[in-house]
Amino acid sequence: MSDTLQDPNQEPRGEPWQWQEKIWREMVERSRAGRSLAPSRWPNGARCAVALGFEADHETTALRDDDDGPTRLSQGHYGARRGMPRIRAALEREGVNATFFYPAVAALLHEDEVRAVAADGHELAIHSWIHERNTQLPYEAERDLSFRAMELLDHLGGRPPVGMRAASWDFSVNTLIIMQELGLLYDSSLMADDDPYELESDGEPTGIVELPPEWIRDDSVYFNMQRFSALRPQMAPSAVEDIFRAEFDGAWNENGLFLLTLHPHLIGHRSRIGVLERLIRHMKAKGSVWFATHEEIALWCKSEAEPA
Amino acid sequence: MSDTLQDPNQEPRGEPWQWQEKIWREMVERSRAGRSLAPSRWPNGARCAVALGFEADHETTALRDDDDGPTRLSQGHYGARRGMPRIRAALEREGVNATFFYPAVAALLHEDEVRAVAADGHELAIHSWIHERNTQLPYEAERDLSFRAMELLDHLGGRPPVGMRAASWDFSVNTLIIMQELGLLYDSSLMADDDPYELESDGEPTGIVELPPEWIRDDSVYFNMQRFSALRPQMAPSAVEDIFRAEFDGAWNENGLFLLTLHPHLIGHRSRIGVLERLIRHMKAKGSVWFATHEEIALWCKSEAEPA
Amino acid sequence: MSDTLQDPNQEPRGEPWQWQEKIWREMVERSRAGRSLAPSRWPNGARCAVALGFEADHETTALRDDDDGPTRLSQGHYGARRGMPRIRAALEREGVNATFFYPAVAALLHEDEVRAVAADGHELAIHSWIHERNTQLPYEAERDLSFRAMELLDHLGGRPPVGMRAASWDFSVNTLIIMQELGLLYDSSLMADDDPYELESDGEPTGIVELPPEWIRDDSVYFNMQRFSALRPQMAPSAVEDIFRAEFDGAWNENGLFLLTLHPHLIGHRSRIGVLERLIRHMKAKGSVWFATHEEIALWCKSEAEPA
Amino acid sequence: MSDTLQDPNQEPRGEPWQWQEKIWREMVERSRAGRSLAPSRWPNGARCAVALGFEADHETTALRDDDDGPTRLSQGHYGARRGMPRIRAALEREGVNATFFYPAVAALLHEDEVRAVAADGHELAIHSWIHERNTQLPYEAERDLSFRAMELLDHLGGRPPVGMRAASWDFSVNTLIIMQELGLLYDSSLMADDDPYELESDGEPTGIVELPPEWIRDDSVYFNMQRFSALRPQMAPSAVEDIFRAEFDGAWNENGLFLLTLHPHLIGHRSRIGVLERLIRHMKAKGSVWFATHEEIALWCKSEAEPA
Repeated sequence: MSDTLQDPNQEPRGEPWQWQEKIWREMVERSRAGRSLAPSRWPNGARCAVALGFEADHETTALRDDDDGPTRLSQGHYGARRGMPRIRAALEREGVNATFFYPAVAALLHEDEVRAVAADGHELAIHSWIHERNTQLPYEAERDLSFRAMELLDHLGGRPPVGMRAASWDFSVNTLIIMQELGLLYDSSLMADDDPYELESDGEPTGIVELPPEWIRDDSVYFNMQRFSALRPQMAPSAVEDIFRAEFDGAWNENGLFLLTLHPHLIGHRSRIGVLERLIRHMKAKGSVWFATHEEIALWCKSEAEPA
Repeated sequence: MSDTLQDPNQEPRGEPWQWQEKIWREMVERSRAGRSLAPSRWPNGARCAVALGFEADHETTALRDDDDGPTRLSQGHYGARRGMPRIRAALEREGVNATFFYPAVAALLHEDEVRAVAADGHELAIHSWIHERNTQLPYEAERDLSFRAMELLDHLGGRPPVGMRAASWDFSVNTLIIMQELGLLYDSSLMADDDPYELESDGEPTGIVELPPEWIRDDSVYFNMQRFSALRPQMAPSAVEDIFRAEFDGAWNENGLFLLTLHPHLIGHRSRIGVLERLIRHMKAKGSVWFATHEEIALWCKSEAEPA
Repeated sequence: MSDTLQDPNQEPRGEPWQWQEKIWREMVERSRAGRSLAPSRWPNGARCAVALGFEADHETTALRDDDDGPTRLSQGHYGARRGMPRIRAALEREGVNATFFYPAVAALLHEDEVRAVAADGHELAIHSWIHERNTQLPYEAERDLSFRAMELLDHLGGRPPVGMRAASWDFSVNTLIIMQELGLLYDSSLMADDDPYELESDGEPTGIVELPPEWIRDDSVYFNMQRFSALRPQMAPSAVEDIFRAEFDGAWNENGLFLLTLHPHLIGHRSRIGVLERLIRHMKAKGSVWFATHEEIALWCKSEAEPA
Repeated sequence: MSDTLQDPNQEPRGEPWQWQEKIWREMVERSRAGRSLAPSRWPNGARCAVALGFEADHETTALRDDDDGPTRLSQGHYGARRGMPRIRAALEREGVNATFFYPAVAALLHEDEVRAVAADGHELAIHSWIHERNTQLPYEAERDLSFRAMELLDHLGGRPPVGMRAASWDFSVNTLIIMQELGLLYDSSLMADDDPYELESDGEPTGIVELPPEWIRDDSVYFNMQRFSALRPQMAPSAVEDIFRAEFDGAWNENGLFLLTLHPHLIGHRSRIGVLERLIRHMKAKGSVWFATHEEIALWCKSEAEPA
């Protein structure tokens, strides 16, 4: 793994089982979960909070791999062409606001869609430039791409985004530093908790709220398909729905946060969109749920927390 | 990825996150979904259309890999020996016409089968020469193989085929150009929509109808098995049937197209053939369904569309 | 892929899509399904035949990979220590004879077990030397190992085996030639049919009966586990049971053969052995089933067939 | 595979199918299952014994791979932050003592947790230094790391651990020798039986009790997720629960041992923790179950056995 800030003159550190304690302690503490920001109450006495996030990657996962074959590109295009209209209609029908994470190149390819999402009242958030993997980039490149992505979403959405999620949740050793430079309110890439927490950088609180995603609550885990790898969608949508519902029920029981990640080109299909619709109805039937954007939740948790 | 038409003297373009906008825009627009050809009505007031397609690959997937071991060849042979008779009997019993996609080498190995399929009233369509991957071929080879495959099916079926599907749905940067040279009515390889659309080449309409397949509606996703890879069939046939049915129900609700892809050597087994039979009965019970070949659907959609 | 009998001076044959017809025709015809040997009747008017086969690989799959770590070896040992007693007890309780395929090294490591299996009235059959992959061996080595394996089972079982199954069902281009030299009655490695057929070598009938296995009817597909690959057992035993039962029901409906492959170290576990037991009871409840060894079935099919 | 004790001057031994009998016999016998230690009775006339084990790997699987990306580290951190409190609460609620296997580095990162686990009355056991793979280490390194791990747990838990499990169950050719040097009571890495047995080294009894785990009874098989491999959690928690319950029911029927392996960062999630809770309740409802630590079970089995 690359660590672009490390000293090129440093001693070779050997195999992990040979490391000095200093090495693994630094790795662990570089971008770590600090104090919990799980609030003692949610707005209006709600029982729990629900954050729905959509990663509108569209064509960018194919582009990121330099895959110029039209097949994967068409799969991504499906997300914009059929997935997004179904998702936006479902959210409008249910009166729920969500957060849409856009790689900059996906936003440039679908500018009208991005504007319409913002006009619907949803939140726009940063999700890399072209779905690049951060851990493969030098610091300068990651920083430059992040700033350009922020500017673009500001331009398209009419206000600067306040949150970010690393593409492929591939958070590098530099990502937290760059997020501080960007002045972001929250990240949503790291998974040390079910509920919000404050990120620490080398042991120091950063003031940045982590809204933890989890593979368990991500449709790509169950529905991804890559022809020339062994990834296959081999779970019934109803079984995926059961897992998402169990995670929500746990959050409801614990007065916590339920954060779900969906992809338009995956969940947007005719056989799957019902998972989203039925899930929202289940949550409403359960009652006392605060549906909110990631931004709203981060703001609430930060304001409810005692001063650090 | 290869791009055989690119200028060998061009500048190196770097990593995807370094690309100029021109590069990714050209990749995206090379063979892209244009206007929708979803018709406002189906023949005889049908509620939706159903296109059943069978990829009769037989021995060719083993040959394509230069695998001369008799084991995989025998698995392919099963498709011709047991799968095809069961499928043809089921289609005859239900009075449904379908489309059979033949790699040329599979057709040459099973000429009587191909003639019998045509005599049954089914459509024959192009599916590569020996199940080769188009993205690994130079333009001249892909073109030559496509023309020879077309001639062979013309010879065996008594009329030239009008449609094509890329083997492994591996559509190259040259495939659309070659399809125009072949004068085809339709392709069925790209997946930007549930319903038919017109393919565009570098932003220009081609007049070629795309009938979109999807991995979700393909039995190989769930039933493929490769001994020395991690591909295993790990879904119950009933669960696969549920997914296919949910996709159909969505098409029925939206007055759209339900296009299904099956492989004789996979679906043709005793424990799986019932999926096809029960699915047809479910669709008939739902009612008002137009079962048609890919060609019939492409012709209808093209004729119903307003002039471009 | 190796072809040890090919002329080393031959011309390079190029990529599969460049091949002359002669090349792929020879590959297909080398060891191919000939005439069907599905009989018009089974003994005593039985509705269908059932062949249960157990591949007693035990420690040999680890040894074959030169894996000297005690972990995988212990997994194989489990097959002998716990799997075999449960299987033998179930078969005795139900009064069913089966066929046990032994790699020679597994038989040498567990000689008493082999003798006891033979004494139970079960059939012993050849299953390689050390679970080697035939397609990676030169002809001389494959021939030598096959003859030595035959001698050993003759020695331990008191009579020469008459059947063989290639380890990993990895049938080489030489396997059929060697089986003719061994004078075998049947093979059980190739999968071109559900029912027995005669194997042809380069288009010539060999007199050898093929009793086709299938991955669908093999517990290793669903239950295999390899720590440092992506192979994981991810199906409920009850779902596997459903698939096996559907395959049996199809054979029963078609008056055909149901051939099942199980592994003591996989099916022999507490949570899985019930699959075998319930399956036998289901078949008995269905009624009119001829349970027989592979040898008995091959003999019947050959004797019932019209002279070639 | 490495064998650090082998003579570097020895002859090359060739491919496995070329080996002399001596070679594979030595491999099989190096660390093998000896006499069964399944007792004729359990304490207080219990019907069966249940050993619950938790591998508290936390951040060490990422560290072991030299993966300094904060994402995987955060997944491990989740085990300590959310998984452990849920597990400890469930065990306390049910009044069940269990065994916690700690890599030394995980214990050093979470010293308070380790002390609290010991104070709860649970057993601490060795589980490598940093989750290193033993089969990749020279003998001296494996020995040194094992002794240091033992000292650390002694220091934190107030008494020396008496048992060990190899990380990734990756038992090397030297592990058993080192366990004898450590004077351990039991190992829990090898899988030749459902019930306890005595380990033999080159055919000689060692006095060390093996408490066999199995992948079937390990949550990581079903719930592991690695973004850049094909590992995905694709089973419903309820299906995993069914498998665990079937294994327990088998143990109960046979008066045997049910040994379960769980990971705080996997089972500890809101949608999965119920598997543990419902399983314990099922076992209690079935009745006459002895819940014990691995140590207690090893001691019982050893004391009940006839002198070797």
